[in-house]
Amino acid sequence: MSLPEVQLKAGILGATGTVGQRFISLLSKHPYFTIHVVGASLRSAGQEYAKATRWKMTTPIPAEVGNMLVQECKPELFRECDVIFSGLDSDVAGEIETSFLKADLVVFSNAKNHRRDPVVPLIVPTVNPSHFDLIPHQRSLHSLHKGFIVTNANCSTTGLVVVLKPLQDAFGPIEAVIVQTMQAISGAGYPGVASLDIYDNVVPFISGEEEKMEYETLKILGDVNETATGFNILSFTKVSASCNRVPVIDGHTECVSIKFKNQPPPSVEQIIHALDSYVSESQQIGCHSAPEKAIIISRDQDRPQPRLDRDNGDGYSVTVGRVRKCNVFDVKFTLLVHNTILGAAGSGILNAEIALAKGLLKVGS
Amino acid sequence: MSLPEVQLKAGILGATGTVGQRFISLLSKHPYFTIHVVGASLRSAGQEYAKATRWKMTTPIPAEVGNMLVQECKPELFRECDVIFSGLDSDVAGEIETSFLKADLVVFSNAKNHRRDPVVPLIVPTVNPSHFDLIPHQRSLHSLHKGFIVTNANCSTTGLVVVLKPLQDAFGPIEAVIVQTMQAISGAGYPGVASLDIYDNVVPFISGEEEKMEYETLKILGDVNETATGFNILSFTKVSASCNRVPVIDGHTECVSIKFKNQPPPSVEQIIHALDSYVSESQQIGCHSAPEKAIIISRDQDRPQPRLDRDNGDGYSVTVGRVRKCNVFDVKFTLLVHNTILGAAGSGILNAEIALAKGLLKVGS
Amino acid sequence: MSLPEVQLKAGILGATGTVGQRFISLLSKHPYFTIHVVGASLRSAGQEYAKATRWKMTTPIPAEVGNMLVQECKPELFRECDVIFSGLDSDVAGEIETSFLKADLVVFSNAKNHRRDPVVPLIVPTVNPSHFDLIPHQRSLHSLHKGFIVTNANCSTTGLVVVLKPLQDAFGPIEAVIVQTMQAISGAGYPGVASLDIYDNVVPFISGEEEKMEYETLKILGDVNETATGFNILSFTKVSASCNRVPVIDGHTECVSIKFKNQPPPSVEQIIHALDSYVSESQQIGCHSAPEKAIIISRDQDRPQPRLDRDNGDGYSVTVGRVRKCNVFDVKFTLLVHNTILGAAGSGILNAEIALAKGLLKVGS
Amino acid sequence: MSLPEVQLKAGILGATGTVGQRFISLLSKHPYFTIHVVGASLRSAGQEYAKATRWKMTTPIPAEVGNMLVQECKPELFRECDVIFSGLDSDVAGEIETSFLKADLVVFSNAKNHRRDPVVPLIVPTVNPSHFDLIPHQRSLHSLHKGFIVTNANCSTTGLVVVLKPLQDAFGPIEAVIVQTMQAISGAGYPGVASLDIYDNVVPFISGEEEKMEYETLKILGDVNETATGFNILSFTKVSASCNRVPVIDGHTECVSIKFKNQPPPSVEQIIHALDSYVSESQQIGCHSAPEKAIIISRDQDRPQPRLDRDNGDGYSVTVGRVRKCNVFDVKFTLLVHNTILGAAGSGILNAEIALAKGLLKVGS
Repeated sequence: MSLPEVQLKAGILGATGTVGQRFISLLSKHPYFTIHVVGASLRSAGQEYAKATRWKMTTPIPAEVGNMLVQECKPELFRECDVIFSGLDSDVAGEIETSFLKADLVVFSNAKNHRRDPVVPLIVPTVNPSHFDLIPHQRSLHSLHKGFIVTNANCSTTGLVVVLKPLQDAFGPIEAVIVQTMQAISGAGYPGVASLDIYDNVVPFISGEEEKMEYETLKILGDVNETATGFNILSFTKVSASCNRVPVIDGHTECVSIKFKNQPPPSVEQIIHALDSYVSESQQIGCHSAPEKAIIISRDQDRPQPRLDRDNGDGYSVTVGRVRKCNVFDVKFTLLVHNTILGAAGSGILNAEIALAKGLLKVGS
Repeated sequence: MSLPEVQLKAGILGATGTVGQRFISLLSKHPYFTIHVVGASLRSAGQEYAKATRWKMTTPIPAEVGNMLVQECKPELFRECDVIFSGLDSDVAGEIETSFLKADLVVFSNAKNHRRDPVVPLIVPTVNPSHFDLIPHQRSLHSLHKGFIVTNANCSTTGLVVVLKPLQDAFGPIEAVIVQTMQAISGAGYPGVASLDIYDNVVPFISGEEEKMEYETLKILGDVNETATGFNILSFTKVSASCNRVPVIDGHTECVSIKFKNQPPPSVEQIIHALDSYVSESQQIGCHSAPEKAIIISRDQDRPQPRLDRDNGDGYSVTVGRVRKCNVFDVKFTLLVHNTILGAAGSGILNAEIALAKGLLKVGS
Repeated sequence: MSLPEVQLKAGILGATGTVGQRFISLLSKHPYFTIHVVGASLRSAGQEYAKATRWKMTTPIPAEVGNMLVQECKPELFRECDVIFSGLDSDVAGEIETSFLKADLVVFSNAKNHRRDPVVPLIVPTVNPSHFDLIPHQRSLHSLHKGFIVTNANCSTTGLVVVLKPLQDAFGPIEAVIVQTMQAISGAGYPGVASLDIYDNVVPFISGEEEKMEYETLKILGDVNETATGFNILSFTKVSASCNRVPVIDGHTECVSIKFKNQPPPSVEQIIHALDSYVSESQQIGCHSAPEKAIIISRDQDRPQPRLDRDNGDGYSVTVGRVRKCNVFDVKFTLLVHNTILGAAGSGILNAEIALAKGLLKVGS
Repeated sequence: MSLPEVQLKAGILGATGTVGQRFISLLSKHPYFTIHVVGASLRSAGQEYAKATRWKMTTPIPAEVGNMLVQECKPELFRECDVIFSGLDSDVAGEIETSFLKADLVVFSNAKNHRRDPVVPLIVPTVNPSHFDLIPHQRSLHSLHKGFIVTNANCSTTGLVVVLKPLQDAFGPIEAVIVQTMQAISGAGYPGVASLDIYDNVVPFISGEEEKMEYETLKILGDVNETATGFNILSFTKVSASCNRVPVIDGHTECVSIKFKNQPPPSVEQIIHALDSYVSESQQIGCHSAPEKAIIISRDQDRPQPRLDRDNGDGYSVTVGRVRKCNVFDVKFTLLVHNTILGAAGSGILNAEIALAKGLLKVGS
């Protein structure tokens, strides 16, 4: 994919929050998305970004963003934006994003609010870019010229589906998935988890997380229906998730056991081969942020580890290790996903790159 | 159970190690076991205990132990001991414990070496004290007068079987168990886990741990055969474990999904009731260290948590929370066990109390 | 000190907060203070304590407190209380405590608000119980019959003065103190420090903390004036503090360098002897909560350590180690204080015990 | 400084250790140093580097290094190297480095062994490159043609002298320095600090560290004597250090109080200005790895923080915050240095760049 001829103007909703900060950090180094407007709550609006924000990234605030004035999250203030990335909290995301959609703007949202909408694609960029096929129907339904909304998935779901997708492609339907997560504190935003709650501790509960994993997996791994007007959500596959918070800064680790419909199941080496050779559509298109490998196989017996492996593929790869037989199901393994890059802001950006490649962004029109 | 008339003399093997330190810490407050000899490797032998040991408990070295001379782990030096607790490392435990057994001594071992021996009971004190029934056969086989050896279980297995036992008793055979652990660093001894390996990290592998959970569970939950000469190891039940090390000092957390043979399965409330009302034999006997409740049910949605719940029942209770339906199996829940108390030294001590109550310790004879 | 003939009724202000929880945890095991009323903000008032509180102690809520109804912090609701312990936040403590004082109630406050009041004693129980001598003047000034208010010190100050007191007593005025702290997260209350702020991190700033250490030390180490109407605050001694938050649950560690006025200074061994042989008035009186030793000297080169030493003396002792010559001043050492026991709630309770012993509590009158 | 015409061949001693891994990680991206030989202990020699090493960097082993055969640390095996970087442990570094020097090789050592040698420069690259002036004398003394040895400083010392240097330059002699460190676990190598020793803990002792800070500071801040045959070690300045290990992965934080000889002392703003405007010789020369700013001033009241600021200047800058008046001395502040980059391997590399710029590397000769 060659670079676009013009820079695309990007707006960021929820720019002062954790996901918003990650959007800014990633976009400040992007070759063709330029940060044009940063939006946040009324409380921050009117202030310089650097002053309105408790910046928590480990790299400094990009100079060009630091003195931008924060805007309210109103569509008319983002009218010039070619793409809008939303890192809004779910308590406000639904209404605001809908108002942006109605204003014919293009929204890539990290919020959960529209993920279950039957005409909103839920896209993990290294899994199901084909779900963009529904955009014409979505536009027509809302009488839009160029606007649309696409969501990325929950962070833990993201890691899981990247691994399940090539297995389903290669070996047929997956009957059962039991997954246990060990999730990083950055997933809870800022101030998020109190240190007294997580230090020397595990919290075996994350509100709504298990339900998201159990539902979103089925939508993402399903396909678009024949008339491109809806999604076939997997009904055969059952997913059971147990989600835990552990004292790790970034990177969600997941232990997964799966059972295939087709028996006998593939061998461990066949599974490793399927994962190792997987190339997603976003990589084939040559998207700028697509990782060299969507899945990195580690053959060390004690990997993946979040501190050492979360930045693999600049945070866009999922690392898989310990692929082995399961006494109960067919196979089990451990995976690691960077929860704030591929699991959040990075997915939004890579989804936007895919949309551009697919001709869905009507730049400057 | 009334107190014995005399104090019992206790010896400790591997007394300078982490498990040995916990034995000392627990025994120093015990009403009728008195620490009589402390044994360790040749390197430590002859030194005062306080000098030979890098003490890592959060309470001071008991005064009466600090200036004991450390002995070599030779049976003749422990001849006066009524009971011997072994916290030896597995690389030396096999041979040393066997030599103690042959010398007609009573050994309660935390090491893995004899756990798979067909005539050695593997006993979790709040689960299967009935396995002591094999002791007469073990003695006869080795021509012993009063000696025998009993092992306690792996720390993670211990937590699991305490919960599975009442479920099996109440609802019949368990067909499948998928368990994922988040284990504390104290389980690896000292120096054990390097801080660079676990800080801001998860290590998704603990050598030999998954195999122990998958085997020991079946031996412990099985029963003694009719002639009291061997164990019926469960063959129907399948266990699949994924074991992880997390940055927690003490307390292993486990996410468990189980499937019963008998369908329809019990309801969530029936399961909670079975767990909550469970009373083990060691409690019925009235053993000193037996917890008031073998299983403590937490109804808070975000418990158990290791930092807050590991000391429940002074470390002898298992805490269970989040009992709920599983999309794939019948039920899932989270459990917490104190890995160095019930999961190690505490089991040895409580097992010795049971043995005394059952008349298996021939004190002073 | 023999036990009082009657139980004393204790009220707790700010009972749902971190300090309040510690008061409850300590008082529930107290031989003669009985928890009678628990007070908190209007938001919690009227609810059962167990429901109103996010309990974060590692032992369960005492049964007798769990179902008490939380009261508003109004003096008329605490009229029956013989003593009142205040764990209120400083934003409300000033006004509420004053209203309790005016109602002729006895208040032991952990809040900073009255610490600089010229007629309010600032008492660390193992340092300056003699400051209770000002109570008659305080009562007379406010026309009180039995009420008074006493505050305990800031947590970091507390550890420091316990060590400086015997040195000043033995070797004369201290000219200069440079102290750097490494403070536990529990000192910030709950939710307090965000995990993203402290995990894999040090925060080199705690608002107002350095000023407290630099002032309170001078008031505590000074004496009551000749007419018992005010305090002689040290003017010769200079204190410079640098306060840091580190990833530790409980226990403040402090590195201290000091210079004496009198030269040549005492030797290291003389200093160790002075610290080791120190017995405070609260110990001499035989107060129930007074530790066996106010200062525990560790001669291990790598102690004190918060995880291993914070519970020394049940949290009422200060542990001192690494006493050695300083290249710049006379001597330097490291100390450790349990910030939520001696450094907060425990000081309040021990102060109340001292007041009782001194006849300042007019029980039932 | 323009790039050299040829690539320089670099050898690494102790290549499998923590410092060696950092050398490899930094050199693999270096424009003109090429890794040519990797040396380690006899145990590793003959194996492929990737197999011989427990790689702990967060980026993968550079491909070109992974399959190099590890060599023994013998001079004849490094004869082709233009520069040699030593990350050897101090128990072997002395002898091996001396043998390399005698073989007329150029050694930049991170080990402590030669730091106190009266003819070996102890150079922090953003502080005292002028100490290279002694190299001709060192060569002449050892009858060398092109070889020499230079050491970099202890990690904590490094951070301190970078800040003291501009203050001494601007305001004259410093009379007294009291410094307290909070040091990262990576400074102890691998396996280094046991997790049970540092989790939820502070260790107030690091063997030999305080002595290094108190001595090395005086050598580095002194100058070369008139005949360029020795160093004038500061005799007026007194340094007192208290060193602590805290649970942080990378980045040493230091609280510093200083007193100037010349009174009245500079104002806080004058000090900030002196630090902020400081440009070291390595920056003036334009060395590749020299940071844009040797010292970065943070004006936020709660910075520097290791997790957020350690990578400033790619780990080659020292970040200073909280510059303020000291009650006892003249001024106090907090500094942060990346202990394994500027504080170790990075200093060695930058020192080599300076040596090249000064014409001290006789490449290919």
